[in-house]
Amino acid sequence: MTSPPHQTAVFGVSGYAGAELARLLLHHPRLRGRAPLFFGRPEEEKGTRVALTDLHPQLAGNNGAGSVTVEPFRWDALGKQKVDVVFLATPHEQSRAWVPKLLQHGVRVIDLSGAWRLDEETNRAIYKLEDHDPAAAESIQQGAVYGLPELHREQIAKAKLVANPGCYATSVILALAPLIREKRIDLGHGIVCDAKSGVSGAGKTPTAKTHFMHAADNLSAYSVFNHRHTGELLEQLGLQAKDIIFTPHLLPIPRGIFSTVYIKLQQRTTPEEIDACFRNFYADSPMVRWYGTRLPEIQFSVRTSYCDLGFALASDGQRLIVVACLDNLLKGAASQAVQNMNLLFGWPEQEGLA
Amino acid sequence: MTSPPHQTAVFGVSGYAGAELARLLLHHPRLRGRAPLFFGRPEEEKGTRVALTDLHPQLAGNNGAGSVTVEPFRWDALGKQKVDVVFLATPHEQSRAWVPKLLQHGVRVIDLSGAWRLDEETNRAIYKLEDHDPAAAESIQQGAVYGLPELHREQIAKAKLVANPGCYATSVILALAPLIREKRIDLGHGIVCDAKSGVSGAGKTPTAKTHFMHAADNLSAYSVFNHRHTGELLEQLGLQAKDIIFTPHLLPIPRGIFSTVYIKLQQRTTPEEIDACFRNFYADSPMVRWYGTRLPEIQFSVRTSYCDLGFALASDGQRLIVVACLDNLLKGAASQAVQNMNLLFGWPEQEGLA
Amino acid sequence: MTSPPHQTAVFGVSGYAGAELARLLLHHPRLRGRAPLFFGRPEEEKGTRVALTDLHPQLAGNNGAGSVTVEPFRWDALGKQKVDVVFLATPHEQSRAWVPKLLQHGVRVIDLSGAWRLDEETNRAIYKLEDHDPAAAESIQQGAVYGLPELHREQIAKAKLVANPGCYATSVILALAPLIREKRIDLGHGIVCDAKSGVSGAGKTPTAKTHFMHAADNLSAYSVFNHRHTGELLEQLGLQAKDIIFTPHLLPIPRGIFSTVYIKLQQRTTPEEIDACFRNFYADSPMVRWYGTRLPEIQFSVRTSYCDLGFALASDGQRLIVVACLDNLLKGAASQAVQNMNLLFGWPEQEGLA
Amino acid sequence: MTSPPHQTAVFGVSGYAGAELARLLLHHPRLRGRAPLFFGRPEEEKGTRVALTDLHPQLAGNNGAGSVTVEPFRWDALGKQKVDVVFLATPHEQSRAWVPKLLQHGVRVIDLSGAWRLDEETNRAIYKLEDHDPAAAESIQQGAVYGLPELHREQIAKAKLVANPGCYATSVILALAPLIREKRIDLGHGIVCDAKSGVSGAGKTPTAKTHFMHAADNLSAYSVFNHRHTGELLEQLGLQAKDIIFTPHLLPIPRGIFSTVYIKLQQRTTPEEIDACFRNFYADSPMVRWYGTRLPEIQFSVRTSYCDLGFALASDGQRLIVVACLDNLLKGAASQAVQNMNLLFGWPEQEGLA
Repeated sequence: MTSPPHQTAVFGVSGYAGAELARLLLHHPRLRGRAPLFFGRPEEEKGTRVALTDLHPQLAGNNGAGSVTVEPFRWDALGKQKVDVVFLATPHEQSRAWVPKLLQHGVRVIDLSGAWRLDEETNRAIYKLEDHDPAAAESIQQGAVYGLPELHREQIAKAKLVANPGCYATSVILALAPLIREKRIDLGHGIVCDAKSGVSGAGKTPTAKTHFMHAADNLSAYSVFNHRHTGELLEQLGLQAKDIIFTPHLLPIPRGIFSTVYIKLQQRTTPEEIDACFRNFYADSPMVRWYGTRLPEIQFSVRTSYCDLGFALASDGQRLIVVACLDNLLKGAASQAVQNMNLLFGWPEQEGLA
Repeated sequence: MTSPPHQTAVFGVSGYAGAELARLLLHHPRLRGRAPLFFGRPEEEKGTRVALTDLHPQLAGNNGAGSVTVEPFRWDALGKQKVDVVFLATPHEQSRAWVPKLLQHGVRVIDLSGAWRLDEETNRAIYKLEDHDPAAAESIQQGAVYGLPELHREQIAKAKLVANPGCYATSVILALAPLIREKRIDLGHGIVCDAKSGVSGAGKTPTAKTHFMHAADNLSAYSVFNHRHTGELLEQLGLQAKDIIFTPHLLPIPRGIFSTVYIKLQQRTTPEEIDACFRNFYADSPMVRWYGTRLPEIQFSVRTSYCDLGFALASDGQRLIVVACLDNLLKGAASQAVQNMNLLFGWPEQEGLA
Repeated sequence: MTSPPHQTAVFGVSGYAGAELARLLLHHPRLRGRAPLFFGRPEEEKGTRVALTDLHPQLAGNNGAGSVTVEPFRWDALGKQKVDVVFLATPHEQSRAWVPKLLQHGVRVIDLSGAWRLDEETNRAIYKLEDHDPAAAESIQQGAVYGLPELHREQIAKAKLVANPGCYATSVILALAPLIREKRIDLGHGIVCDAKSGVSGAGKTPTAKTHFMHAADNLSAYSVFNHRHTGELLEQLGLQAKDIIFTPHLLPIPRGIFSTVYIKLQQRTTPEEIDACFRNFYADSPMVRWYGTRLPEIQFSVRTSYCDLGFALASDGQRLIVVACLDNLLKGAASQAVQNMNLLFGWPEQEGLA
Repeated sequence: MTSPPHQTAVFGVSGYAGAELARLLLHHPRLRGRAPLFFGRPEEEKGTRVALTDLHPQLAGNNGAGSVTVEPFRWDALGKQKVDVVFLATPHEQSRAWVPKLLQHGVRVIDLSGAWRLDEETNRAIYKLEDHDPAAAESIQQGAVYGLPELHREQIAKAKLVANPGCYATSVILALAPLIREKRIDLGHGIVCDAKSGVSGAGKTPTAKTHFMHAADNLSAYSVFNHRHTGELLEQLGLQAKDIIFTPHLLPIPRGIFSTVYIKLQQRTTPEEIDACFRNFYADSPMVRWYGTRLPEIQFSVRTSYCDLGFALASDGQRLIVVACLDNLLKGAASQAVQNMNLLFGWPEQEGLA
């Protein structure tokens, strides 16, 4: 493999997903010899550069991460360094504000925030986004591609702006998409998605909720009937709000999502048919591991870039449970972003993710 | 308070629920001055007595537990010591075998196992119980009372044999009973119970599943469509198998159950009506704490004897989520057993449980 | 037991130790029928009363805690309600400022902060305390009694101001005091105290250190050669700084302290002599559990009011390890405060703590 | 890189260290295209082959691990497949019995057990090893090299048998070796090593000690004055038993070791001198990360192949604390074994470990 003519940059490398993204990019076989540029979040910069390993000590020793610095952001660095892809691991307000400028600079953008994932304004309302130039933003929104390779790999390959999916949304959409496509679900019955996530999903800012004393030895539900990722489920799966309930819970573990999805099938179905439906759908998707009737556990997928799927079918052949597990920081964020980068550059989807 | 003419005995005090039961009985204000008799499980006895605090060091110093011994079981001790209530914290096979003999000895029994909870043989089949005298067993079964005080306090008070409910079953039944009584649930839609339990629910025997390396930093589903407690839900709530899905998950915490129960209501309902339905039902139930529209967390109920209940209602007034939390070793086992003892003796239900 | 003529008040009930103190006082058999007054921290008050169970949901249902309110602080409440003992669960600056005024009001004070524990100004310097009236403060300091009942129960009984010990300090002092009294330690060799504490010891304020993602699956040392509790060890054990190293570590558990104390004995000693030394010293100390050559584990003492002690002696008879375990919020804070209150009122030391 | 003429085999791949070893070897850049042979433990074999991912589901998708099988052990496979290095991740009895036969087959062996680490019979006694041919075993023992590359890289390169060090021993030896070499330690004072390890160190067999209910929310000390790794410290550091105390504790985390090492220096020393001593010693050791006066945390090294070292020096310039952190399954086992393989084959020490 020769070093490619590509240069990447990461904005907002200080968070948990940012750290994973840095790790993956520093190890990516196609980017060897060309470390990404790392920029801090504007509010954290204070005009000084810091070592990447000061922010994330666990990265020390990783392919020369010790000498990598995080710089204060400078627009002119993009042109000088011939950056062609920018990853935004920034808060959604900032991603919304910066994407128009970045696109004007001619770079392609993979945004890890929720800012550009939702086409419908009613779904986007929960983010309270404000656009400087609403018409331009709407035009950019129309061109944005939802960065779930298993559904949209061809559009992603051509996109200027990839909206990297939410972690919960990735797990639920991958659990349901094959059944939706084959119109197997009795939607009148309603789909129930009982999802559980590790604490890293709540972000790095210390809060009462992420305090060890609250998060450890506990389980709580939150954002019931009102979670931000719900809109992604509706738009990507072609559902209406009444068709699906999505309930997130906070697990006392650092990482990982486990979504238990309850479905009523239109008609009596065999386990073999379910198995074939999923195998068929994901035949060319290297980042999905299909377990069949063996249910995945959260531990199997944590610290991997895979989404694991398995199912159990009641003896009536109609009541189906699909379990989806993934690492919220990897397939739910950083690995998916790298998977999208691979598509943008025409590399194998799983490159650097095994 | 004067010391009562009552003497209790606990069989199988070596497990987690046994330890909690010992602690509660040693502190019970109506049993002061008269420590229960503690017997080991037959297979653990080896004919020797051991100090209770050797089995459970955390009990040392508790109202003289230091001098309490666990004895090899002897039938004649029941009569000599005038035992009038026996708690069985024994495996279900053993409880099934011993109850007939204990009843013949004239003692009342509170059985914490699943041996006598289920009236219907099809539901009981999962326990693979074998009766020495099937006719006698069937007769005893007819007289057994399901020991959920919130549903059956009057029958419990008069019972010879109380079948203490399963931990999961307690949480789900208490979440649903008020809605069932008022016929508010659209059963055709199906009830989904996504339940999560701490590791103590899996028992004290070391297994691959309870190994720290498997249980920690993990979540897994188990006994999907096939958990033993399902029969209790059906019989106590008057449901059929097709009406309800119950899925247990293993949480990486020591104790506590969190059941998220998804219901479709028959008709558009207001939060106030839901609130009134539950308040009304549990008005005289001291061991249920009603949270209304604030959702309980597992941490609030762990190490208490309460079942905590709260709800969230979708804006359509029909999709309802009820959350039930309790400590699987207390309201899910030992505290409920003591609550049942209080009823047997005519004491206030919450005595010794606050 | 009849309701006593005593009324207590707790300032700063919002923290972890405050919650435990509230729980213990609400259950204290000598205080039945007379709930303590609870006051918030001034900076949290905002002039409104809140339910105690809003601050600490897990207290709901505890002896009527549901109707107990936390009031904005008012000095005149002390006289009107005839408060005779005040517990301060406030930051040390606040405790330092309030104690002079409280003593002027004629109430006795049990201060859980570090403000009044240290006689020597050099040891106190680490708290950066400022006194409005230094001479008065110095006089109060002289009269303050270090509230470790196992060492000072007689002085505590007569004290106006009890300085409740630090959690780490309690564990280390109790591990060493019997050996110090019998002059068994070779001080020239140096004592090593390797102490480990659960996260509640770091307080309720969310910080990067107490974030679940940092505290879970981790261990770190902190305040090496520089921890605030060191001065307590020196003063209470009559040691000099060079005699002892105290290193705290942050454990990934909610509660509990485990101190491993390494000692070189002056001369060859038998296990029986060590055993006798400790048994003798703690013969009349109900809140110390002596394990002898069986080492305690942190789990045995968590959620109890005991300090557990055990030892291992090398075959050379000179190298000794003493292990001390306790719950940092109980014997390390709230239970010790109640133990001190019992002494102030002439009640049995262990009353309400079993 | 071209595929090398080397073929490796792993015996006993079913444990935690075995899984890590499999993962590292499957990803090793010099072994691409030539997967190791994997053999089960004899007692687990039952004569059937199983998929590696059935034993370790988290390996699925790793460089074709899905098609890798674990075979029943057959001696003739070694010759047929031209295996030149065998890793033993087997119990020490088995390693002791097999090594003579393996060496006779002309393969080089890296043994991860404690069977061949100790030259002195008194130190080895704790393993209760029995040799079929004691003289031959003694001769093999003399030729065995202790596989700590930072101390013995040249001998390892030439060794037939590498005895991979214990996890605890690695951390303590690396913390002390630089100070020992420069004769800086006042041994008369005694070295205290207070070590803490995650639960994977206790192995995969379910026991009361590794049960989640015992290991979680707990800390305990074990094998006090009597741990198997003590002999390695004595032999490798040239110490006598009286010079050092080593106390292991069981941490409630899956992986990671944190050793707090207390040293009295011979004379007053500056932090700069300590810093230089370690930098100098580890200048050419790529798998040691030196933190200087910043203390490492267990989290920084977990899931890396590094040993992290840092120190704190008291203001007296004589009392020194060195902290060593590593992942017990990696630098404490599997990564160290790969590091040794790299030396055997003349590859860069860190190859496949970054």
